[in-house]
Amino acid sequence: MPDLQHTYPTDRIAIREVGLRDGLQLTKHWPTTAQKIEWIDQEYAAGLRYFEVGSFLPADKVPRFADVRDIIAAVDRHGDAHGIALALNQRGATDALATPVGEITVVVSASQAHNEANVRRTQEQSLAEIANVVKLRDASGKDTIINVGIAMAFGCSLSGEVPEDDVMRMVDRCFEAGADMVGLADTVGFAGPRQVASMCRRMEKRFGDLPYVIHLHDTRGMGIANAAAAIDAGCRVIDASLAGLGGCPFAPGATGNVVLEDLIYLVETMGFDTGVDLEKIIEMRAIPVMAMPEEPLYGALAKAGPPKSLDWRASAA
Amino acid sequence: MPDLQHTYPTDRIAIREVGLRDGLQLTKHWPTTAQKIEWIDQEYAAGLRYFEVGSFLPADKVPRFADVRDIIAAVDRHGDAHGIALALNQRGATDALATPVGEITVVVSASQAHNEANVRRTQEQSLAEIANVVKLRDASGKDTIINVGIAMAFGCSLSGEVPEDDVMRMVDRCFEAGADMVGLADTVGFAGPRQVASMCRRMEKRFGDLPYVIHLHDTRGMGIANAAAAIDAGCRVIDASLAGLGGCPFAPGATGNVVLEDLIYLVETMGFDTGVDLEKIIEMRAIPVMAMPEEPLYGALAKAGPPKSLDWRASAA
Repeated sequence: MPDLQHTYPTDRIAIREVGLRDGLQLTKHWPTTAQKIEWIDQEYAAGLRYFEVGSFLPADKVPRFADVRDIIAAVDRHGDAHGIALALNQRGATDALATPVGEITVVVSASQAHNEANVRRTQEQSLAEIANVVKLRDASGKDTIINVGIAMAFGCSLSGEVPEDDVMRMVDRCFEAGADMVGLADTVGFAGPRQVASMCRRMEKRFGDLPYVIHLHDTRGMGIANAAAAIDAGCRVIDASLAGLGGCPFAPGATGNVVLEDLIYLVETMGFDTGVDLEKIIEMRAIPVMAMPEEPLYGALAKAGPPKSLDWRASAA
Repeated sequence: MPDLQHTYPTDRIAIREVGLRDGLQLTKHWPTTAQKIEWIDQEYAAGLRYFEVGSFLPADKVPRFADVRDIIAAVDRHGDAHGIALALNQRGATDALATPVGEITVVVSASQAHNEANVRRTQEQSLAEIANVVKLRDASGKDTIINVGIAMAFGCSLSGEVPEDDVMRMVDRCFEAGADMVGLADTVGFAGPRQVASMCRRMEKRFGDLPYVIHLHDTRGMGIANAAAAIDAGCRVIDASLAGLGGCPFAPGATGNVVLEDLIYLVETMGFDTGVDLEKIIEMRAIPVMAMPEEPLYGALAKAGPPKSLDWRASAA
């Protein structure tokens, strides 16, 4: 059995860098394997410990993630780093379980319409596949975490509003299917902070301090506000991507995931020590600039730098 | 006596557009008088009602605000629009009081070091000048609001941390000097949401529902999160600028004021009807693009547009 509290201790905020997975989902180009490894190594040296590194998909169809095993190995070299990879079905999960990846994310949508449009399966079928992935993990004897990312948990670009009750029912179904943890994703960036806070309070009320992920997109500028609301409401695991890479599949030209650099600053102002050297992370933006020069980089902090006249780090408080 | 509750009713969020004042503080070019009037007229038509339009400064030294009287007149043509202008001393206030402007903002810094560096006066001297401005207003027989903007209220780029107690003492001093209201400004964008919430709770505890302004800069990406925290903690008057114009005088190249478009979306998600046509505001970005083509425009919402699959407006709830 995976030891969730060990991987995600409740007295810290786990900031998960999803730049090499969600961040690369829509880019025209992508970094070479060597650049991806440099990306991981520099972020690890700067203090980050959670990395979503790719997706187990047919390499001929999705070449950007063809090197996912190499990137998992690069994460694994750092003893205390936690690697995460996507697998959309049993075949992907079988491949993932053959690697030392610490966590496999499988996806289901809180919206039936989106689930069918996205993976041509009903929610029922996706849940059955999740149960099969859990069985594969159990049979492997490994303690790989099976995490279900629930897409469109804060509203759907196809079906509109998604009632909180529906989302909570889907969370229950995921746990019934054997998932170790879930993530609530604002896939299209509809959410506001009160909505995020309300959902997080429901998660805490129902599951106590069981860790769960909040995955936000900054599509409408609410990313950092929603992260703050999630943390205030007890969430301890937040996704972000370097320079806000990511985009939105349903809004061409839109901004991407929550900006990692700004999120680190937020978390420190909220009194949590991230252990991250923010200046080093800002310098790291040189890697995507080199690897994908046409991609816009987002984030305010990288432009201004952290405050110089006071010690803004939580550890100084 | 100014009727504060009439201008700033406590059951609504007053979004003040400071683009034509703070937004132009550092730009290389600025709009023509005709473009500024078009800016006001279009924003008024889109539903905005609060406009900070310029500064009463010597026109030969600061030509960008030389037309401040014309812009005040443009606001005044719209019966229910509220115009705000800066005046840094009695001379400026005398000029402002000769116009129909609804509110005069005078400035003092929460940091002695910054006050002296900024206006070559001690805080004592600035407070004495504020008292003189209030006397001018009283003598004029007008009900123009005198609002004191307290700069560096969340930390100072020169002196570092500014204790909450110092800020609250400065608020008291402003009221003792006769100010009708105050604004707390995160001039250099140091604040995080917990700090903003803490300050707003102190304001409410001490002054009940007396309106006060939160003026935020997005220098480190915390703008919308800080606005959400302020609103959650009871603040009802928030500054923002179209496309986040504004910059930071102490961080060249940094982002500016809170982005108006994103703030409107935030406020609606928080359940407050802004009455603003957000699509029209997004179209308005054409004016700064034309008037100041070299200025970067910020904001996520303008890139993605508001959600189409659901009714995100508070009035629909």
